[in-house]
Amino acid sequence: MSETLLPKTICWVGGLDGWIEMIDQTLLPGELKVLACHDVETLWEAIRNLRVRGAPAIGIAAAMGVVLGIRDSRSSGEFFDNLAGVCSYLAGSRPTAVNLFWALDRMRARAEALRGADLKVLKQAMLAEAQAIRDEDAATCRAIGEVGQSLIADGAVLVTHCNAGGLATSEYGTALAPMFRAHELGRRFKVYADETRPLLQGSRLTAWELARAGIDVTILCDNMVGHLMSRTQVSLVITGADRIASNGDTANKIGTYGLAILAKAHNVPFYVAAPRSTFDRTLADGSMIPIEERPADEVRKGFGRLTAPEGVACYNPAFDVTPAALIRGIITEVGLVSPVTPGNIRKIFTDEACNEPERR
Amino acid sequence: MSETLLPKTICWVGGLDGWIEMIDQTLLPGELKVLACHDVETLWEAIRNLRVRGAPAIGIAAAMGVVLGIRDSRSSGEFFDNLAGVCSYLAGSRPTAVNLFWALDRMRARAEALRGADLKVLKQAMLAEAQAIRDEDAATCRAIGEVGQSLIADGAVLVTHCNAGGLATSEYGTALAPMFRAHELGRRFKVYADETRPLLQGSRLTAWELARAGIDVTILCDNMVGHLMSRTQVSLVITGADRIASNGDTANKIGTYGLAILAKAHNVPFYVAAPRSTFDRTLADGSMIPIEERPADEVRKGFGRLTAPEGVACYNPAFDVTPAALIRGIITEVGLVSPVTPGNIRKIFTDEACNEPERR
Repeated sequence: MSETLLPKTICWVGGLDGWIEMIDQTLLPGELKVLACHDVETLWEAIRNLRVRGAPAIGIAAAMGVVLGIRDSRSSGEFFDNLAGVCSYLAGSRPTAVNLFWALDRMRARAEALRGADLKVLKQAMLAEAQAIRDEDAATCRAIGEVGQSLIADGAVLVTHCNAGGLATSEYGTALAPMFRAHELGRRFKVYADETRPLLQGSRLTAWELARAGIDVTILCDNMVGHLMSRTQVSLVITGADRIASNGDTANKIGTYGLAILAKAHNVPFYVAAPRSTFDRTLADGSMIPIEERPADEVRKGFGRLTAPEGVACYNPAFDVTPAALIRGIITEVGLVSPVTPGNIRKIFTDEACNEPERR
Repeated sequence: MSETLLPKTICWVGGLDGWIEMIDQTLLPGELKVLACHDVETLWEAIRNLRVRGAPAIGIAAAMGVVLGIRDSRSSGEFFDNLAGVCSYLAGSRPTAVNLFWALDRMRARAEALRGADLKVLKQAMLAEAQAIRDEDAATCRAIGEVGQSLIADGAVLVTHCNAGGLATSEYGTALAPMFRAHELGRRFKVYADETRPLLQGSRLTAWELARAGIDVTILCDNMVGHLMSRTQVSLVITGADRIASNGDTANKIGTYGLAILAKAHNVPFYVAAPRSTFDRTLADGSMIPIEERPADEVRKGFGRLTAPEGVACYNPAFDVTPAALIRGIITEVGLVSPVTPGNIRKIFTDEACNEPERR
């Protein structure tokens, strides 16, 4: 899969004086253009405006953004000041995906562990940590694919929402990883990709990725899934996640919750695929997850054309929360969490889980 | 309301040598343009491409189209030949809305009743019948508004889907009629209008109509309703209908079924508003209703720009069927059918019902 996804979703080019390169996902599928970010402001804008999106990819972008923010420091004191500043700045780019905060915390923790070290060591450690986050994400996605592929039988019919593929991660994806892996294993199946209003990540990005990989994909509008499920036996739904609470309540792209209710009404098992970095164990349940509201014109002027009366009020939450009770299982890099209970979630954070990547 | 809706959604201009005028709804809300149809082919294209849409308005358009199709007949024989031809031709424009077939049947029945009459009488009778269908629709919508307004309490929060307003009928609407009437009665309430992909009748048309009437309206994407219902106490949902089977199963714009499932999951009463001409009593249940599938590019190029990979497969059913069990009541011009049972539906077609327009 990674071979078909050149250029990379996001990567760091060169050494400490290098830059971030990313696919500008707002231009897909019409144009495959690489955006270079040489400064933190450009990166912030890219995250804010979804040029890079998807919880794991946002985490990687934030980690690399920290490198941009600290590399010009002229002293250790300035380094730690800049570190605090850039972390605070990037934390304000998008509120829902916890991977953003997780990555910033990890960068800060690494720097703290080296407090007292040479400035050059500190800077190199930041670059190495950001690269490690990216590399670990790639391995994590592969492991999610391996855990999840067994859910996709030959002849299966899947539904997915938004884009949780290679474009949402370093490569390979979360929700799409089991599909890429099942396809590599020679299984034939069919995927319905919700277009996912307002920004159409499903039709623009998921359809693009799956079609490039040779997987049978059909797009449909979000409001057509009920009819589909009433007429076609859908085998399972797999979506990604932006933040998962301790009890398994899952924030993901707006529409996921409605999809989960439809799945339940039609006895279709509903799965979430996400790395452990997507869990926010500080939250008891999903009611505490902040839900980003985005500008009205994403809905009113979708794709450059006014499709509503000028000035009409608009409700545009970017995420919703699916209660754990609607989720059959969470596909993680260390195994399938099913049933979704606080106890089963705790288990994937034990030491054994960390050493046992294919545990079911 | 009709005052604010000049020009008319659809009307016949002049006598037998006149023409049909309609608002070209594909251009709203950006442009308010009147399309004149002087021949049947132009009308067929207008129905097919949704320049005029909404089950009752399609019925009116078809009836007026019959006039265009017969007015040049030079003999009674030719009149009946042309009548059969134009009815068959127009019946092929769109398959789901039963009002189309109902109106054609009614025009044919009127002509049959006059078989043997003068050619001039026959032609005038066709124009009069088409006008009557339009005028009766206007009265019917007013009656639906009167029956339905009592469901909208002061402070209510409503959700509607697609457009079942003045633009879907001669004027005033079906699903929106109770809202227009409650507003006239001074009640304050809030309406959330699903944008209704792929053709955005909710954000383009419903928001336009409600805002012009001074009603508090907010648009949202179809996939946001679940989140809305989880955070806001929605009082009720009202949608229109394109065809209702004898048991109350209701075909309406794609997404209605999913909306009804979401309403049930959140204990929100779900109502359908429709005139009796929308019932298809030849069908025992909704499984027999033909569902129109429309071109893929409505989804792939919905905003005047390609938003999916070129050539990707697309599922584009235009309607779905909501089972009667999910419908709290059907608001008709002769009263509220609730609970929705075959027996209660039969009652609205009895002679008493016809003479008792406000029966509950």
